[in-house]
Amino acid sequence: MDRLGTVAVVGVGLIGGSIGLALRARGLAAEVVGVGRDLASLQQARERGVIDRATTDLSRGVAEADVVVVCTPVGRIAEDVRHAAELAPRSALITDAGSTKRGIVEAVERSSPRAAEMYVAAHPLAGSERSGSAFARADLYQDRVCVLTPTARTASDRLRRAREFWAGLGCRIVEMGPAEHDEVVAYTSHLPHALAASLAAAVPADWHPLAAGAFRDGTRVAGADTELWTAIFRDNRGPLMNAVAKLQDRLSSLKYALMNDDEESIRRWWSDARARRLLFEAQQPPEA
Amino acid sequence: MDRLGTVAVVGVGLIGGSIGLALRARGLAAEVVGVGRDLASLQQARERGVIDRATTDLSRGVAEADVVVVCTPVGRIAEDVRHAAELAPRSALITDAGSTKRGIVEAVERSSPRAAEMYVAAHPLAGSERSGSAFARADLYQDRVCVLTPTARTASDRLRRAREFWAGLGCRIVEMGPAEHDEVVAYTSHLPHALAASLAAAVPADWHPLAAGAFRDGTRVAGADTELWTAIFRDNRGPLMNAVAKLQDRLSSLKYALMNDDEESIRRWWSDARARRLLFEAQQPPEA
Repeated sequence: MDRLGTVAVVGVGLIGGSIGLALRARGLAAEVVGVGRDLASLQQARERGVIDRATTDLSRGVAEADVVVVCTPVGRIAEDVRHAAELAPRSALITDAGSTKRGIVEAVERSSPRAAEMYVAAHPLAGSERSGSAFARADLYQDRVCVLTPTARTASDRLRRAREFWAGLGCRIVEMGPAEHDEVVAYTSHLPHALAASLAAAVPADWHPLAAGAFRDGTRVAGADTELWTAIFRDNRGPLMNAVAKLQDRLSSLKYALMNDDEESIRRWWSDARARRLLFEAQQPPEA
Repeated sequence: MDRLGTVAVVGVGLIGGSIGLALRARGLAAEVVGVGRDLASLQQARERGVIDRATTDLSRGVAEADVVVVCTPVGRIAEDVRHAAELAPRSALITDAGSTKRGIVEAVERSSPRAAEMYVAAHPLAGSERSGSAFARADLYQDRVCVLTPTARTASDRLRRAREFWAGLGCRIVEMGPAEHDEVVAYTSHLPHALAASLAAAVPADWHPLAAGAFRDGTRVAGADTELWTAIFRDNRGPLMNAVAKLQDRLSSLKYALMNDDEESIRRWWSDARARRLLFEAQQPPEA
């Protein structure tokens, strides 16, 4: 893509910070402005080279932006997009990095025609159980999928520019509707987080000495930020409830087979799951 | 410990192979004999330096053994211990590496006073989703917990020698009763495996492109061997059913909070789990 002028990153945590680092490392923008509420932490991010300039004033941050990337928690994104649309140049692209899409897209499209025209919803599938710009990495998005969820109201030039922007950070672009996105990530991301937390809480600390690799890996993401995941779960509660119910059904099948000591059913229950996992492994890029 | 003479490893897969490698790397035994059913794979293990000598004849394998380590699948261990007790010198220590303990210990103690006296049940908490001696590693047991589950019938000298044997491989020793062991590992190991398999099976392959780190880590152990895990689940089906039910209760709590969009309950549900996971992390050795 052509080199961008100013890119405003609203919310400079792990996600926004990694976008800033990637833009600067790749020389994709003339300037990366970080916008946040805490000037001290923004200045730390600037000192670490995550952003070029820091401001707590959204208006000043986006006034000359070619691109505004909203990286705030999912509960705040729609409002931040709406404000950015009022304050940024009419020609700007506004995109985001939220883990859910349907509610955000609906709220933005309800808010104003201007915001609806400027905005392309995005979800780069990368993150970490850590938070804060101190953990930001320039390669966080390299070879990761970024889902774009355009609607009938999305401007075609903004969609093209959003594809270029996220591809420029190293992402592979996938496109689908916002509701479909939310249904899929309920299974592929939110359910794994719910299971990790369930497992972590189910095992008394006294028993930790007998917990090895399966427990360690199975609970890793339970260390993620509470406010972040409370907001994601709430925002996607319908699809997540369905995914949890489906998972409970699979556990019930296992329990029933165990109750009857039904060797063949236990074997099939395991081998079906194993086949799916081996398929997933075979689909991964070699470095993953 | 004093250097051992002959150690017989019965079942030379990932687990038995790693014991052989560790014994040889540390010079703990004069000779490591591998006993198995498939001579070709035993000879491959010998060529890779996993064992010194290979035989398919249990009698010849254990005839001069100081220690016999039974590393066969859990469904076969009690029978293999019983045979080894008949064929090995009366003074030998027999131990095992099975993931469950109560059923095995009861079967061995029922089988003969001689076997009961020679046997100390063990469960080294190390493994892999891979199987076969080709994946064996000399450091598989380094700094791992090995649970010994002696009973009132366990000979005290054998218990002392079992502690020395497993500590010699690098393990930290923990002791508890066989039934308590099975209850704990139902939560710390078997439940994580059941969840990994449930999650792997719940996500359609079409959706794999939208699956990232949480799914990858959460399903890793679902790639483990079907026969191994069918046998473990069957052997520990009572405690595992309880653990699965408890996990389902936690998922139901989440579903209920989601249904009511009860922000405070969702937040507490997540933060309780997060606190437990952070405690687990803090307890791990730095290299883990």
